Amino acid sequence: MKLFFASDHAGLTLRRALMEHAASLGHDIVDLGPDSTESVDYPDYGNKLAQALAEQPEAHGVAVCGTGIGISIALNRHRHVRAALVNDVTAATLTRQHNNANVIAFGDRVIGVETAKHALTAFLSTEFEGGRHQRRVEKLSPAS
Amino acid sequence: MKLFFASDHAGLTLRRALMEHAASLGHDIVDLGPDSTESVDYPDYGNKLAQALAEQPEAHGVAVCGTGIGISIALNRHRHVRAALVNDVTAATLTRQHNNANVIAFGDRVIGVETAKHALTAFLSTEFEGGRHQRRVEKLSPAS
Repeated sequence: MKLFFASDHAGLTLRRALMEHAASLGHDIVDLGPDSTESVDYPDYGNKLAQALAEQPEAHGVAVCGTGIGISIALNRHRHVRAALVNDVTAATLTRQHNNANVIAFGDRVIGVETAKHALTAFLSTEFEGGRHQRRVEKLSPAS
Repeated sequence: MKLFFASDHAGLTLRRALMEHAASLGHDIVDLGPDSTESVDYPDYGNKLAQALAEQPEAHGVAVCGTGIGISIALNRHRHVRAALVNDVTAATLTRQHNNANVIAFGDRVIGVETAKHALTAFLSTEFEGGRHQRRVEKLSPAS
């Protein structure tokens, strides 16, 4: 699967570790930055990832900031994005099954790297269940 | 502070425990439901909470669903809402300081009730830091 990765400065270390992990699983990795730990604004990189997913709707995204909260809010401002902030394999699995999430978000200051890797693996290998969940997902992105 | 509480059926138990906790801290509680464990759609209750905050911008919100993810996405579709899904006191504190979050969200199936109570207490007693964080928060809700 094609995966876009974006973070802010606080999420750079975990973003890079997760990129390496996803590449090792055979996924097609696209790095949206940033490239240094110089301070940047998480909404800018959340919006950049949302734009990439608008252009390639079949892709998924991975987003990281200090808590994962700020970049998740920025992403979920976009109706085609369902960004799930997770802290473990359980939430990563449930959000694919129930929310058909197309972005997984992490907090670099909150989650350990191995826990995040396991959660990403689960996210990438779990299918949406549809059924009653489809109606709810559609309500997240109603026709204008 | 005036606090609006909303959940889906999966979040009813934790929502009620947190309402009791917030009332014991002296806050003004408004319950937006639901009133039973009959299955409902989390976007409906996220939107109901967003509407309440649009009408009373000085209030804050507490949202619960199974993972906290679905109702957070629904809430963050609204530009006046900054809904933070948290799993501990640390994230609850940081999201007030950095994101000026006006909604705290929890996953009933993910977090224990005492951990959630402590996180809610921290959320309600922490101030936004402003400064560089103000610029980022403004980018989450740009002028149309």
